[in-house]
Amino acid sequence: MQSGMRCLQRYGVDLGKGIAAFPSITCPFRAIRLDAAPQAFYNPRLPRPLRDPNVPKRNAFYAQSGGVTAVVNTTACAVIETARDHAARIGRLYAGRNGIIGALTEDLIDTGRESARAIAALKHTPAGAFGSCRYKLASLDKDRAQYERLIEVFRAHDIGYFFYNGGNDSADTCLKISQLSERMGYPLIAVHVPKTVDNDLAVTDCCPGFGSVAKYVATSMREAAFDVASMAKTSTRVFVLEVMGRHAGWITAAVGLADDQKTPIPLVLLFPEIPFDEAAFLAQVDAKVKRFGYCCIGVSEGLQNAEGELLAEAGTRDAFGHAQLGGVGPLIAMLTKDRLGHKYHWAVADYLQRAARHLASKTDLEQAYAVGKAAVELALAGRNAVMPAIVRTSDKPYRWKIGVAPLDRVANVEKKMPRDFISAEGFGITAKARTYLSPLVRGEDFPPFKDGLPQYVRLRNVAVPKKLATGFKL
Amino acid sequence: MQSGMRCLQRYGVDLGKGIAAFPSITCPFRAIRLDAAPQAFYNPRLPRPLRDPNVPKRNAFYAQSGGVTAVVNTTACAVIETARDHAARIGRLYAGRNGIIGALTEDLIDTGRESARAIAALKHTPAGAFGSCRYKLASLDKDRAQYERLIEVFRAHDIGYFFYNGGNDSADTCLKISQLSERMGYPLIAVHVPKTVDNDLAVTDCCPGFGSVAKYVATSMREAAFDVASMAKTSTRVFVLEVMGRHAGWITAAVGLADDQKTPIPLVLLFPEIPFDEAAFLAQVDAKVKRFGYCCIGVSEGLQNAEGELLAEAGTRDAFGHAQLGGVGPLIAMLTKDRLGHKYHWAVADYLQRAARHLASKTDLEQAYAVGKAAVELALAGRNAVMPAIVRTSDKPYRWKIGVAPLDRVANVEKKMPRDFISAEGFGITAKARTYLSPLVRGEDFPPFKDGLPQYVRLRNVAVPKKLATGFKL
Repeated sequence: MQSGMRCLQRYGVDLGKGIAAFPSITCPFRAIRLDAAPQAFYNPRLPRPLRDPNVPKRNAFYAQSGGVTAVVNTTACAVIETARDHAARIGRLYAGRNGIIGALTEDLIDTGRESARAIAALKHTPAGAFGSCRYKLASLDKDRAQYERLIEVFRAHDIGYFFYNGGNDSADTCLKISQLSERMGYPLIAVHVPKTVDNDLAVTDCCPGFGSVAKYVATSMREAAFDVASMAKTSTRVFVLEVMGRHAGWITAAVGLADDQKTPIPLVLLFPEIPFDEAAFLAQVDAKVKRFGYCCIGVSEGLQNAEGELLAEAGTRDAFGHAQLGGVGPLIAMLTKDRLGHKYHWAVADYLQRAARHLASKTDLEQAYAVGKAAVELALAGRNAVMPAIVRTSDKPYRWKIGVAPLDRVANVEKKMPRDFISAEGFGITAKARTYLSPLVRGEDFPPFKDGLPQYVRLRNVAVPKKLATGFKL
Repeated sequence: MQSGMRCLQRYGVDLGKGIAAFPSITCPFRAIRLDAAPQAFYNPRLPRPLRDPNVPKRNAFYAQSGGVTAVVNTTACAVIETARDHAARIGRLYAGRNGIIGALTEDLIDTGRESARAIAALKHTPAGAFGSCRYKLASLDKDRAQYERLIEVFRAHDIGYFFYNGGNDSADTCLKISQLSERMGYPLIAVHVPKTVDNDLAVTDCCPGFGSVAKYVATSMREAAFDVASMAKTSTRVFVLEVMGRHAGWITAAVGLADDQKTPIPLVLLFPEIPFDEAAFLAQVDAKVKRFGYCCIGVSEGLQNAEGELLAEAGTRDAFGHAQLGGVGPLIAMLTKDRLGHKYHWAVADYLQRAARHLASKTDLEQAYAVGKAAVELALAGRNAVMPAIVRTSDKPYRWKIGVAPLDRVANVEKKMPRDFISAEGFGITAKARTYLSPLVRGEDFPPFKDGLPQYVRLRNVAVPKKLATGFKL
């Protein structure tokens, strides 16, 4: 217990003073209502009944879902380390090989076969150590068999705790599994653990994974801007950086942090939330090139035209008719050349941005660890169908706590950027956006380097012997 | 003197023991002949006559040329700091605004107006602090007027030392200016200072700027590979990273460092030196995907087909006929999809790779500083039409010194990768390449961060009053 509190405190979570005065032992969560925030703050103290040695020991299952991040393994590390801290309650912790597919096909990994050192190294290793997948389960009505198969696998391996580390889709899956297990009379506690670079999960103030991408794109744009400024006299005047975030412009907004009072940069941002207005855009670029000699453009891969079509797909196709060949970044660059005549360069960071553990945000890492740890402690406290959420309690100084979000408020909801985060003309960020974004990129936590390169761990990923006679066809 | 030696030693230059035994005071350079390396090692001790207080004090001019790097400002810092250390010999140090264009148009920057602190901050600031340019002077025969104009500007500002910081082209320009000034009877010492991410300068073992790009592309590919490995089961199986280096494959080879014994990665490299063989390439990718589940491809922007055409230009054009829209990276990605059916992702790092000061190589930084310092000291020693070069004296442990290269051996020569750096089948690097490349990426030297972002300096760049009545049309 004490070690758990110390750990959360070490990771920046202010636990407050009121722990001893909580209304009830069995429900040790303060009922604090925040505007669009989790309804209760999470308190890591385990209720007494759950510390009862007679509560049966169960195994746990952890899976990563969807696109990976620079810090999702940090969350995995927290889940595993915290489960090991509670060995009296949690027996084996299995991970799904390639996410939920591993559960469906009974392809489980025994995390107990990894050394403490290897698990600790996950903290500084990007991507998904057990593999992830893009595999959305159909609705319960359409394919009940899949859900039943999951329960069957869980039952075979006596899995009492299910931790699902992902975005909107996986929150929904997690909720459905929780509901079905209840209906089937199988005792299971399902906790969703937030993760997405897109930062589009509801309720939580931000999503682990986002802060590090934000830091990467802001740093990269700042560095590229210094480059372009050097070359603008005779060469490149327009630089375009295409970033991720197909539906929500959070990452595009983070590009805006490259430009600040001390380091002004002529930036134009193209958000997926704002339909592309070619004339207005070109006027912006033209004005900046005329005034500053160059212009940097951050564009979301999800930029749409007024008809709601993706620009990358609507505008151009190559000689073979492939829309995926050039992204929207090169398209926008070419447009400025055609219309304004400027020499351009463009970059598409793609996976580099979300895998860039070498430039991770320390704040992001701390939150990624905190949600993993909280997930296990919530499960042990008997909280089912919930998600640990990040609750911002102060902007300046930046302070946050872990709260608890009921899964039905998170599942399948997409949080877009508020309009007042985008400047009136639609091509920049507001002071409000800056206040929100700035703390999320703060702090550095470089991985260990050897011979000039970052050292990342690969786990052994030893398979758990199968117990079921039947297989499962995906 | 002593401070100069200490400084070089601090920057890792082994000055050896033989300094006192040099054959002559007026020519204090050891005549050591190395295979394809500078003929003489540089000794920073100034000969006595040049320390004579009666030698007239002259001004100096420094300009950056061509594409910038993460560490060219480190060289600028060294030139300025060293010139300041020799205030008895060097009066004012002017920089060309936007490179040599600044000299032609008499648009000079007075570096004396910058604080010591601002100059020191150049060490950790990417790109070109005074602006660079892509402007190649025509040959002396074709446009003698340009060269004469340069001498005219130098004469007007009593410039006795010319430091030109660039690649092959600027080495050639530097040599011509040196020759013309001699013919015109204008006393000028011209020293070229090496800089290029392409690593294609002759004589010098490596080029400042390259080590940092190498570190960036190797790190980025390693991180992306972890990402792809996580996703390969249901999603991306092929990842393509396009890197710079249009004519020489040094940067492409550096991608190969991502894969090593401790962290094996299924890599396929496409060098500009090896004509693209589609069938052989696809066989490589297919084999790696079958064996490892995924494949990462590093491709040079300068990849050519058997006819010597750039693939990026030969193969595809968009609906408007633009060849520049998609680079060769997306083209290669699409090809694997078409022929092998794998889902792909691609990244084009573009300026991000050469501006990435946040991930600079410490070795590279030290060498960038050392060549800048050596350039000034060579000039003060009366060495004209030379370039300080990096001489590797040992692979393990890695050791290097500064040597002196005569400019006529550097100008307009392009150093391609030796064939024995590329594996027999043409898609990887050899142990020999690894031995060469590995030390160049070693060591970290992170810039200062504030609020999560790197802090880079912008100079005041105060203009020097013009002295000439005539302007100059570029």
